[in-house]
Amino acid sequence: MDPNIFRKISYGLYVISSTMEGKLNGQIANTFFQITAEPAMVAIGINKNNLTNQFIKSSGVFSVSILPQSVPLDLIGHFGFKSGRDIDKFATVPFRLGMTGAPYLVENSIGYLEAQVVNSIDVETHTLFIGKVINAEVFSEEEPLTYTYYQLLKRGAARPAQTAQPPLAEKKAEAPAADPATQKYECPVCGYIYDPAVGDPDSGIAPGTAFKDIPDDWVCPVCGVSKDEFEPLE
Amino acid sequence: MDPNIFRKISYGLYVISSTMEGKLNGQIANTFFQITAEPAMVAIGINKNNLTNQFIKSSGVFSVSILPQSVPLDLIGHFGFKSGRDIDKFATVPFRLGMTGAPYLVENSIGYLEAQVVNSIDVETHTLFIGKVINAEVFSEEEPLTYTYYQLLKRGAARPAQTAQPPLAEKKAEAPAADPATQKYECPVCGYIYDPAVGDPDSGIAPGTAFKDIPDDWVCPVCGVSKDEFEPLE
Repeated sequence: MDPNIFRKISYGLYVISSTMEGKLNGQIANTFFQITAEPAMVAIGINKNNLTNQFIKSSGVFSVSILPQSVPLDLIGHFGFKSGRDIDKFATVPFRLGMTGAPYLVENSIGYLEAQVVNSIDVETHTLFIGKVINAEVFSEEEPLTYTYYQLLKRGAARPAQTAQPPLAEKKAEAPAADPATQKYECPVCGYIYDPAVGDPDSGIAPGTAFKDIPDDWVCPVCGVSKDEFEPLE
Repeated sequence: MDPNIFRKISYGLYVISSTMEGKLNGQIANTFFQITAEPAMVAIGINKNNLTNQFIKSSGVFSVSILPQSVPLDLIGHFGFKSGRDIDKFATVPFRLGMTGAPYLVENSIGYLEAQVVNSIDVETHTLFIGKVINAEVFSEEEPLTYTYYQLLKRGAARPAQTAQPPLAEKKAEAPAADPATQKYECPVCGYIYDPAVGDPDSGIAPGTAFKDIPDDWVCPVCGVSKDEFEPLE
């Protein structure tokens, strides 16, 4: 079996959100599709270890926010590389509550739908939830973000023609007055921190290498974001 | 609920095939995704009225052939707009049988996987089949066809840089010696036939209009293929 076949499947990229006992949470997922048109039924696959899985099982509802090509990478980092067990993800992101009680994004989203779970199947490490769509709204005619396009974005190989929506956080000022030999840099997506004292030996970057001296084609060893996306750590 | 939301979901386009009592059949589908990586499990949604649904239920196996951007439109017409109850779809298409016995395309495909059904759910008009991947092979590094790209292809708005794989059938010669006032034309995707005596009144084309006199932005009233894809009927 050639595992590369799984890289040939086309997906979008979404924030799947739910609620439990007044708490809200959401996560990035690509495994979402419509099954039937009339009535409108959809399916999502969610890892059992994720807090969002627990919320959906408890409340029986979820929302799907459809991300645009112009999505800032740190929004994907916020929802995709952090756990709702550690932070309140919706504390810093504009949202509204849907009819089901599940939250949905009102910025960096081209629209959402919300659904009530009518069935679920246990599939090894994941749960497949089947939902009946209760409500849906389109916010924008921007191009939807695909998983393929996200891979290009991460590598710095694609830039939207214009960023129509505000980034999650203002970029920090470049080139702080710190000593380059000790200045640490942080990946905006997964939070990996490059420390010159440690280097990145697995990628051939020896300890003692200042961030500016790393080759331009170096990428985040955790999530693959390109070097020029990194931000100096205060 | 705004039904346009469903046009914002990103999909690939696939030929899903199966077998029953020595017979083979396949159809176009977009609702296919991977659920888990280890073990590799996938899901597909198939309309209950389709012969392929019956074959998968009977044999418990299916294959997924991943179409390339360069796919000829008539291959999509062959698998997507005809029924295996009327024709033997694999009689005219190069294929091999996988380990499961399900057939897969060996031309106009960037690879395939085959799976054994481990579970299924009845979802209104469709069945959602969960399959454990048994085997997979990548044939080509061409770009996968997405549903969005297919919509562009149909409208004649996108053309692959090159057609790396042979079309299903050689194009017929243009401009036959027939009388334009009576010459019929056929849609290569869905088989719709334009007859000048009938016209296409729903699209504003009056009876008696020769095919060459139809405006260039006219499209097939059944499947939306652009006028310049039509072929003269012998």
